[in-house]
Amino acid sequence: MTTTTSAVTQTVPVSLGDRSYDIRIGSGLLDADESWTGLPKASTAVIVTNTTVGPLYAARLRAALDKHYPRVLTIELPDGEAFKDSATLNLVYDGLLGAACDRKTVLFALGGGVIGDMTGFAASCYMRGVPFVQVPTTLLSQVDSSVGGKTAINHPLGKNMIGAFYQPVRVICDLDTLDTLPPRELSAGLAEVIKYGPIADAEFLDWIEANLPALMARDKAALAHAVKRSCEIKAAVVGSDERESGLRAILNFGHTFGHAIESGLGYGEWLHGEAVGCGMVMAADLSMRLGLMPAEFVARVKVVCERAGLPVVGPALGADRYLALMQVDKKTEGGEIRFVVIDRLGSARMQGAPEALVRDVLAAHCQPA
Amino acid sequence: MTTTTSAVTQTVPVSLGDRSYDIRIGSGLLDADESWTGLPKASTAVIVTNTTVGPLYAARLRAALDKHYPRVLTIELPDGEAFKDSATLNLVYDGLLGAACDRKTVLFALGGGVIGDMTGFAASCYMRGVPFVQVPTTLLSQVDSSVGGKTAINHPLGKNMIGAFYQPVRVICDLDTLDTLPPRELSAGLAEVIKYGPIADAEFLDWIEANLPALMARDKAALAHAVKRSCEIKAAVVGSDERESGLRAILNFGHTFGHAIESGLGYGEWLHGEAVGCGMVMAADLSMRLGLMPAEFVARVKVVCERAGLPVVGPALGADRYLALMQVDKKTEGGEIRFVVIDRLGSARMQGAPEALVRDVLAAHCQPA
Repeated sequence: MTTTTSAVTQTVPVSLGDRSYDIRIGSGLLDADESWTGLPKASTAVIVTNTTVGPLYAARLRAALDKHYPRVLTIELPDGEAFKDSATLNLVYDGLLGAACDRKTVLFALGGGVIGDMTGFAASCYMRGVPFVQVPTTLLSQVDSSVGGKTAINHPLGKNMIGAFYQPVRVICDLDTLDTLPPRELSAGLAEVIKYGPIADAEFLDWIEANLPALMARDKAALAHAVKRSCEIKAAVVGSDERESGLRAILNFGHTFGHAIESGLGYGEWLHGEAVGCGMVMAADLSMRLGLMPAEFVARVKVVCERAGLPVVGPALGADRYLALMQVDKKTEGGEIRFVVIDRLGSARMQGAPEALVRDVLAAHCQPA
Repeated sequence: MTTTTSAVTQTVPVSLGDRSYDIRIGSGLLDADESWTGLPKASTAVIVTNTTVGPLYAARLRAALDKHYPRVLTIELPDGEAFKDSATLNLVYDGLLGAACDRKTVLFALGGGVIGDMTGFAASCYMRGVPFVQVPTTLLSQVDSSVGGKTAINHPLGKNMIGAFYQPVRVICDLDTLDTLPPRELSAGLAEVIKYGPIADAEFLDWIEANLPALMARDKAALAHAVKRSCEIKAAVVGSDERESGLRAILNFGHTFGHAIESGLGYGEWLHGEAVGCGMVMAADLSMRLGLMPAEFVARVKVVCERAGLPVVGPALGADRYLALMQVDKKTEGGEIRFVVIDRLGSARMQGAPEALVRDVLAAHCQPA
């Protein structure tokens, strides 16, 4: 099975009432005038980017925005998950207030998930809310963090603990920006692409397995299909549960284990997608140990993650530390850790699990402490 | 004309769809069990208060909440507008995460406007949103900042620049807590009570003028009526414009000048209500100079503010500094400063004004620079 999808611009609508918006996916979108028409009017547009992506793409985005806004400013933040914090967020506020940006100012998040999360959260708080546009330049942010309006920063005691649900007014996914993505980050993005198979679409998992070489080779048509299908699935889930009261939690498949890895090692050691990939293997195993899925499913998740270049063995934090870290994770309610498990291929649900089973999973998939 | 309203518990409903809530106004509410029934269930309730109000009332609130929540924690912040900042906000997050508070935790804001603003903003951001209850203990917060869901912290470059629209699930106004309010803060609260007359209710302004001695003497029946009528007016305005796109801005009568005073002197020098009182005199004068109101109206606003113990002459910042400070105020859009003006008694609107007129107002009502 191979893709027949072309890389011409495609649109995925996200339906959220008066907070609805479109995700546009294609090549050459950064320089295309139509990417930036019809956005909210303002006297100032502010590009928020980082020291890695800024030098590559900020000048081009600025040139495109210059046709639509009287003043275009750029705020460049340090790069990396380690800077997704309160101090760096304040740099955005300092920049906006220092330039006397008013409450109609439009922010443009140019970068990966960290930039998207910080810019979105800054937009939600600046003067109690200004519009923002996502311009994700990593595969992970194109398929995941740019869709659905979850914005946040980290706290020393936990990931994404401080944030808001806040929707962008548009998302522009220019696939050409993936050409400069380091291989490790491409793999991290593929982890979230793979995720959509087990939780929502068995056929998409088949497609991913068949097209993994094309995806790894950054074939634009394959990437376009992967991004579009991932966004469609996420948009459908988010559209029915914007504030994560129930269904939306299935998007966190692999994330409870994954967050413990990220937090236990210190943010930035493993990439988020790497932790999620490894976490999916553990969550698949937990699904098996709960009697929901066969052993073949665990092997399948592990193999596709390995083929995508992802780590599949967790770091040696020790089971007690893993459990303590998962306890503080925000999916904990009333003290019980709840996991996203697969109950049949293409279907997921939340449930608790006996601690002994969780310890078995950790013993099977982590380096010994 | 005197009030006939008794001080038995009264309820003002705030209608905002699925974010609707009730404001309860009366005596003895802090200790009354029914004040705290029917709130969201949670394993932990957290009282956020300050070093002034905490010692007076936190133990009583805690005793009342102990009957409804398995665990009740208290976070005590330093007192004052000077601490309504990012660093103090982080103390709330540190306390919540340090105690492993989950996403169902209910926050209780016990204090004045600063505590309400910070607790509400913390509640909106903590794990992307937990419920909170307002327990305002100052007149100003009972009639103004506890109603309508505007939460924020200050930035060195401007007041309330970082925040969110986030509604409480209930507001409990215990009038007995006003017994311990310093006289200066009572006057500051009366500034916002007075405000509701010119912008929305000419008869209420008559009532205030007639009942000012009773209000200054903290007569419970008079206070109950003043709080109730103020909340009703604000609730009606907020109900029709939750996100401040138009009508709601009239609640900022006196605030554009007032914010400039607060910001120019440094937050905490004048109380917010004091700055608003003085700002109302200037805004009334601007309304006159724009040909909208007679000179008698300016005199009337000035006299009632003076009788309420409020300052009516602005500090000597110099007109240029006033203008610069108002320029960065969030009501500035596209560079033009917009003011709330009175166009007839009980009716307000937003409009721009020639800079020369604004300078005349400043010259007439501020100490010479």
